[in-house]
Amino acid sequence: MVIIVKTGTSPGVVAQLIERVADLGFKPHPIYGVEKTVIAVIGDKTQEKIDTIKTLPGVERVVPILQPYKLAGREVKPEPTIIHVGDVAIGDREIVVMAGPCAVESREQYLQTARFVVSHGARIVRGSIFKPRTSPHDFQGLHEEGLEILRGVKAEVGMPIVSEVLDPRHVEMLAEVVDVLQIGARNMANFTLLSEVGHTRQPCLLKRGISATLDELLKAAEYIIVGGNQNVILCERGIRTFEQATRYTLDLAAVPVLKAQTHLPVIVDPSHAAGNAEYVPALAKAAIAAGADGLLIETHPHPQEALVDGPQSLEFGDFEQLMRQLKGFAAAAGRTFPVPAATHN
Amino acid sequence: MVIIVKTGTSPGVVAQLIERVADLGFKPHPIYGVEKTVIAVIGDKTQEKIDTIKTLPGVERVVPILQPYKLAGREVKPEPTIIHVGDVAIGDREIVVMAGPCAVESREQYLQTARFVVSHGARIVRGSIFKPRTSPHDFQGLHEEGLEILRGVKAEVGMPIVSEVLDPRHVEMLAEVVDVLQIGARNMANFTLLSEVGHTRQPCLLKRGISATLDELLKAAEYIIVGGNQNVILCERGIRTFEQATRYTLDLAAVPVLKAQTHLPVIVDPSHAAGNAEYVPALAKAAIAAGADGLLIETHPHPQEALVDGPQSLEFGDFEQLMRQLKGFAAAAGRTFPVPAATHN
Amino acid sequence: MVIIVKTGTSPGVVAQLIERVADLGFKPHPIYGVEKTVIAVIGDKTQEKIDTIKTLPGVERVVPILQPYKLAGREVKPEPTIIHVGDVAIGDREIVVMAGPCAVESREQYLQTARFVVSHGARIVRGSIFKPRTSPHDFQGLHEEGLEILRGVKAEVGMPIVSEVLDPRHVEMLAEVVDVLQIGARNMANFTLLSEVGHTRQPCLLKRGISATLDELLKAAEYIIVGGNQNVILCERGIRTFEQATRYTLDLAAVPVLKAQTHLPVIVDPSHAAGNAEYVPALAKAAIAAGADGLLIETHPHPQEALVDGPQSLEFGDFEQLMRQLKGFAAAAGRTFPVPAATHN
Amino acid sequence: MVIIVKTGTSPGVVAQLIERVADLGFKPHPIYGVEKTVIAVIGDKTQEKIDTIKTLPGVERVVPILQPYKLAGREVKPEPTIIHVGDVAIGDREIVVMAGPCAVESREQYLQTARFVVSHGARIVRGSIFKPRTSPHDFQGLHEEGLEILRGVKAEVGMPIVSEVLDPRHVEMLAEVVDVLQIGARNMANFTLLSEVGHTRQPCLLKRGISATLDELLKAAEYIIVGGNQNVILCERGIRTFEQATRYTLDLAAVPVLKAQTHLPVIVDPSHAAGNAEYVPALAKAAIAAGADGLLIETHPHPQEALVDGPQSLEFGDFEQLMRQLKGFAAAAGRTFPVPAATHN
Repeated sequence: MVIIVKTGTSPGVVAQLIERVADLGFKPHPIYGVEKTVIAVIGDKTQEKIDTIKTLPGVERVVPILQPYKLAGREVKPEPTIIHVGDVAIGDREIVVMAGPCAVESREQYLQTARFVVSHGARIVRGSIFKPRTSPHDFQGLHEEGLEILRGVKAEVGMPIVSEVLDPRHVEMLAEVVDVLQIGARNMANFTLLSEVGHTRQPCLLKRGISATLDELLKAAEYIIVGGNQNVILCERGIRTFEQATRYTLDLAAVPVLKAQTHLPVIVDPSHAAGNAEYVPALAKAAIAAGADGLLIETHPHPQEALVDGPQSLEFGDFEQLMRQLKGFAAAAGRTFPVPAATHN
Repeated sequence: MVIIVKTGTSPGVVAQLIERVADLGFKPHPIYGVEKTVIAVIGDKTQEKIDTIKTLPGVERVVPILQPYKLAGREVKPEPTIIHVGDVAIGDREIVVMAGPCAVESREQYLQTARFVVSHGARIVRGSIFKPRTSPHDFQGLHEEGLEILRGVKAEVGMPIVSEVLDPRHVEMLAEVVDVLQIGARNMANFTLLSEVGHTRQPCLLKRGISATLDELLKAAEYIIVGGNQNVILCERGIRTFEQATRYTLDLAAVPVLKAQTHLPVIVDPSHAAGNAEYVPALAKAAIAAGADGLLIETHPHPQEALVDGPQSLEFGDFEQLMRQLKGFAAAAGRTFPVPAATHN
Repeated sequence: MVIIVKTGTSPGVVAQLIERVADLGFKPHPIYGVEKTVIAVIGDKTQEKIDTIKTLPGVERVVPILQPYKLAGREVKPEPTIIHVGDVAIGDREIVVMAGPCAVESREQYLQTARFVVSHGARIVRGSIFKPRTSPHDFQGLHEEGLEILRGVKAEVGMPIVSEVLDPRHVEMLAEVVDVLQIGARNMANFTLLSEVGHTRQPCLLKRGISATLDELLKAAEYIIVGGNQNVILCERGIRTFEQATRYTLDLAAVPVLKAQTHLPVIVDPSHAAGNAEYVPALAKAAIAAGADGLLIETHPHPQEALVDGPQSLEFGDFEQLMRQLKGFAAAAGRTFPVPAATHN
Repeated sequence: MVIIVKTGTSPGVVAQLIERVADLGFKPHPIYGVEKTVIAVIGDKTQEKIDTIKTLPGVERVVPILQPYKLAGREVKPEPTIIHVGDVAIGDREIVVMAGPCAVESREQYLQTARFVVSHGARIVRGSIFKPRTSPHDFQGLHEEGLEILRGVKAEVGMPIVSEVLDPRHVEMLAEVVDVLQIGARNMANFTLLSEVGHTRQPCLLKRGISATLDELLKAAEYIIVGGNQNVILCERGIRTFEQATRYTLDLAAVPVLKAQTHLPVIVDPSHAAGNAEYVPALAKAAIAAGADGLLIETHPHPQEALVDGPQSLEFGDFEQLMRQLKGFAAAAGRTFPVPAATHN
């Protein structure tokens, strides 16, 4: 780290500061300028010690230098991580589309959607049975009774499933059926849940928090990896800003920034960001152009009747059209895109 | 709700829209203007139905009218709620200061701090044994072994304790010792945890999420109240903005806005907002002037040695001075302020 | 507009409110619900009258319904506006790339860059002689002495030029040489400058303010159009958020949202948003995929020696490579892309 | 500054980097750690050179150390600046209240308001004749014809006037009548206007931009001071965030942060921040408690008829009551507060 000393600090206080830093186990290198003194500090360090140094007399501010994510960072593992979910490889050359309804509402609705999206190129089927809702008066998902639906539809369609986990007590139960455990934006900093998922070996889709920095997203991934589970897929899904025309502001620069810092795969959820089906296709295409490894898209047979997130769910016809258009952008990005069943193309 | 119809929608589509709205169980009142048609809708409604209507052909947008927080809102309970914690009444005339270290680090550190803050007018002692930390490599609290320290210090000092709960599986255990269960900013939308606390009758200090609107804070409170626990204290602790000079931006307008909308008491945490002990006194005074019912302040016997949040913790001398100054502001606000032990004043 | 009446307002106050609204020249339609009363209001209205109504007794809030941008809106002109600058058509099928240095530093630097970008497919050359800088101690541009450089290079290269105008007193002078007047993000709400540009017929590139909503961007465009100048090109260039990994957060949803609301062309500036040349290509590709009509890209022969914005300027080699890659994305988007001189491709 | 070198940079590239830095006129001090190398750099530096260094091979990031505001900073002038406007001293012990309507609408409205606020303790009368409005279809002020009203009312009431300047061509004209030139939030980064005001010696009230950091506010002040005008009053008026319950989020931490960094006086505008008269008193009191030197408050004889900002304007009765309440908070803050005419108190 680098310690910047307050202007006007007396030489005696600077000397004490250097001594205190050395006492903490660091090797301080002071540099005395005309206007400013800085102390470069070498040694392994944790956040606590940085916080300690911030409180010492004479310290104006402390600039950390090392990335705090040892395990998620490219510095320790330069080559990209490819996560295998059944036959699907996430983070490899193929653009992986995960699609389906926000919530599982019934066996019919789920099976119909799963069949449709799979027949048009989706490689993983989304659908949650536990839904975090802002108001307790809204539909919260089918809960345990949805588990059998997940199991049955998965068997019938033969594709992996991604589904949200909210409660650390449900991790084990869900992991038996669900192929990819989704940790939603509201739970990105729910470290109890992250740790629990870290103790499994289940692939995990970790969404960026609504106001989380990319740095914090990487630290949240670190919570999972530190438990032994390296199968973390990062997901940009929009951040909260002052702009009200869309539900959230999709931060597509997250894709190249994360790619530069971590070896983990990065996908994008254009549906939650837009909050409006009308804007989903433009954002989905842009995500692929920005270098995303995959997409998470909400689709519903009858968005008007959806119990959750209807306004942002694509109708089947629009999903089909989007999948056709995405192929060209995947090619321009030097990626492959699944060939859906011939009759639909 | 009010449905605003897209410009240029044909009369036929408008007629179908009105019919569909009626089918959903509402009573629609269309108003036809020269440029725009709107449909006012009367009837009980849930978020799902609003979402459904948003997806109907011809709908430009839907404006909800009723507050979705039935239980937390002033509309159902105009008089303020006063929450009793031992001898302390929160939401009454007295400004209640809750103070102590961020984390319990040892029996000595916690006892020393508790004695000091109580002798200077704090009415509730803060101190957590479970700490959510952004990085898994940082100190996470003493966990279960801290429980005995909490119990012992509480008995010795004779004052109620507020302490954070992170895991729904810990609610019961903590509720046996801790007087006020704190739900931190990162967990404001952890609905699993909110529900679990809602099933106790334990007073609960609910912090606003880092990027939560006041509306969402009230809905989170609703999650607790709906379970049967009405003892919710709301806490403004700063929101995330682009400004980097402070850790968060304290939104003091939250105090009058919340007071206008809810009957629940509202306190302010100036320590986390500032992130820097230097700015805490100004914000603490401002919070009282804005009408807060209390304050949550971090204090540490040796901030330089704190394992968590040292930079924002007040030294004992600064805490003592602040408590003296606050008295004048409490008086100007027409509130009472505890008289600390004579020898210290 | 729709007026939402406060819960508990007495029938007498509601009656007075209705009367006052009628006095203001509107036709009020009250709808009485069990819990809430709303008043739908028909008639032409200005912001002042909305503000007036907000202050009347019994009013909880007022929801405007009509778009306030009459001239920029699609409601009055559904077909897209194509802006012609010399031979270049902005808003038509071709993706128009505007490239060059942030600031004109010398005749050599500007000519070299202009030749290079034009030979690789740029259709408009950027370069400013007036630069707004956050600190008064930084380089502010060549000012009047740069005007001759602009004139000379434009003649030599034979391509239109886009250059920033800061001062209403410079509009006329710049308009003689410059083909597209750029209004920077800091000046989006400088209504004096907008009006002055509105009184010319010069094409104008209007950048979104750092924290402007899309609604405000359209109202700023309205300021120019209302003066008689319809040649407004809108430009998304990133908004300010809490995220610090990039200079600004590029809001690509702005492209489909603006396209839905206005007939004006929309381009994207990935350079200022990224603040870092490394992330510019990903954002440039994403912008085209999102439906932008063009790009504004900073390029410099020697970014290390640039007087302004070096870190975000592409080196020539990187610009050349990006232009090659963009062609594929333009094709996937159903757009044309200029064929640069054969020798370079 | 401190240069942080990318992990894995070869010793040869580091050596070249050190050489380049030296070529730029700096004295580099490299410190080699196990994981990271940093280069501390001593010497006078401008933003350009920092930008140059950012682009050099091997550079991960550059941390500036010196404050870029030489003239506004406490480092060069530790004692507070007191600005004298007629008999009023801003930045001294007295809390200075500036009050009046947002816009001058007529001689009657302005005179009535001026008399009222002055008789209740306001020391400066606000009122603008040029108003920046988001939409060109709204009332823009009385313009030149308002000048005579300002002159007449000022003479009649005998108090200084603060009024907004929008156009650099109006600075001279306004400075003849107006005592304090106000630069609004939208123009904080209108450097043309700042420079023009810097060339006068007129006291200037500089409002923080809607999304400006405190650092940028100080740099904007620097633009004025560098021209020779040191009479700059800074004004916090709320920043734009995601919260929609208030018009802006008042950042009261700005007061202690600015006080720590600059010698200039700092006042607060609670009216624009709140956007709602109901919340203005709480924020006004909080501002004084936070250490502000004064307040800028909107008042109107008939807020319902105001042409601008009616919803946030206090009625006379509410203003009178607020002024009475503020006295107690000023006393608690160790400040004096003007004694209004006896009959009203």
